[in-house]
Amino acid sequence: MHIGIFIYPEAEVLDFAGPYEVFSTAARLCPTKAPFKVSLIARDKAPVRARAGFRVIPDYDISQHPELDLLIIVGGVHTKEMDKPEVINWIRKQAAKVKLLASVCTGVFLLAKAQLISNHRVTTHWEDIADLKQQFPTLTVVDNVRWVDNGEVISSAGISAGIDMSLHLLERLVNRELALKTAKQMDFDWTENGC
Amino acid sequence: MHIGIFIYPEAEVLDFAGPYEVFSTAARLCPTKAPFKVSLIARDKAPVRARAGFRVIPDYDISQHPELDLLIIVGGVHTKEMDKPEVINWIRKQAAKVKLLASVCTGVFLLAKAQLISNHRVTTHWEDIADLKQQFPTLTVVDNVRWVDNGEVISSAGISAGIDMSLHLLERLVNRELALKTAKQMDFDWTENGC
Repeated sequence: MHIGIFIYPEAEVLDFAGPYEVFSTAARLCPTKAPFKVSLIARDKAPVRARAGFRVIPDYDISQHPELDLLIIVGGVHTKEMDKPEVINWIRKQAAKVKLLASVCTGVFLLAKAQLISNHRVTTHWEDIADLKQQFPTLTVVDNVRWVDNGEVISSAGISAGIDMSLHLLERLVNRELALKTAKQMDFDWTENGC
Repeated sequence: MHIGIFIYPEAEVLDFAGPYEVFSTAARLCPTKAPFKVSLIARDKAPVRARAGFRVIPDYDISQHPELDLLIIVGGVHTKEMDKPEVINWIRKQAAKVKLLASVCTGVFLLAKAQLISNHRVTTHWEDIADLKQQFPTLTVVDNVRWVDNGEVISSAGISAGIDMSLHLLERLVNRELALKTAKQMDFDWTENGC
């Protein structure tokens, strides 16, 4: 199973490092049940300067990468990505192919821009809730949850909530036992949604 | 104030990305009170292949970098680093210069190897507690805490505990208000040590 994490200039570091850690740790703990390969994908193959100057080398660019089962769109300074048709078109095309599509933090703005969500229930960073409602008024934007699961599209709250959501995706893709085991390996106090 | 995070091949991704996120977010939220610059430092200037193939470009190598106020040694597959005299010597020399020295996860093994801790109270990843006790029997190794603060040397438990410890360091370096504000910005449920 191939998990792609889309990164871009000024992407928030923990938005991609958190999910990367979850899925790669799960794969290490249980390679038979979680035969995951995790890749960072960017518009270009050049190193990406994420937020605060953190430089990371993508594994693939959007023009050529393996088929993905799960695509995660991260947040950060997402505004410039909104204006890149090649990025938005790539996300739209991938959405038609992947099993699951997820966003961390303000990554949900890119899903909305790509018209992949319209009247969905979604969430984002608490600071961007009002902005998301204003820009995409047909969405039902939910506050005070770690993630919102629509079946095929899952969105998480801010930054560290991407870790909580990734553990949830792990539960969906494999089982709860591996999600709990992965959280324990990461010494992470998994915050799940309340009832 | 300059914060250096030492990374190496097979370092655990969240061990360095977590603290990086904490200090760079704090600097963004309050540049006057937290005039932090965060840098990744490696043995060489070449890209570092961290755990699960995550490739990151260090800002400096150990032969030439700015003076550091805080040095964080991360964990992961630390065993090969134990056998690199140039790395261990560099850590030892830096320890004499920095205000604070910290470890995440198994990074504490490198501090012990550099003879920077002897009869200190320390912690590490739950899976490595027994190994640390055995290799360095004069240490008092503590379990079930997020971090142990010795004043000048602070060690954290596994992987995600590096985020909790970094927030604690932020409280020490600036104040509690900024630590809480940073956790909120990261949408992170800060787990502190119990009483």
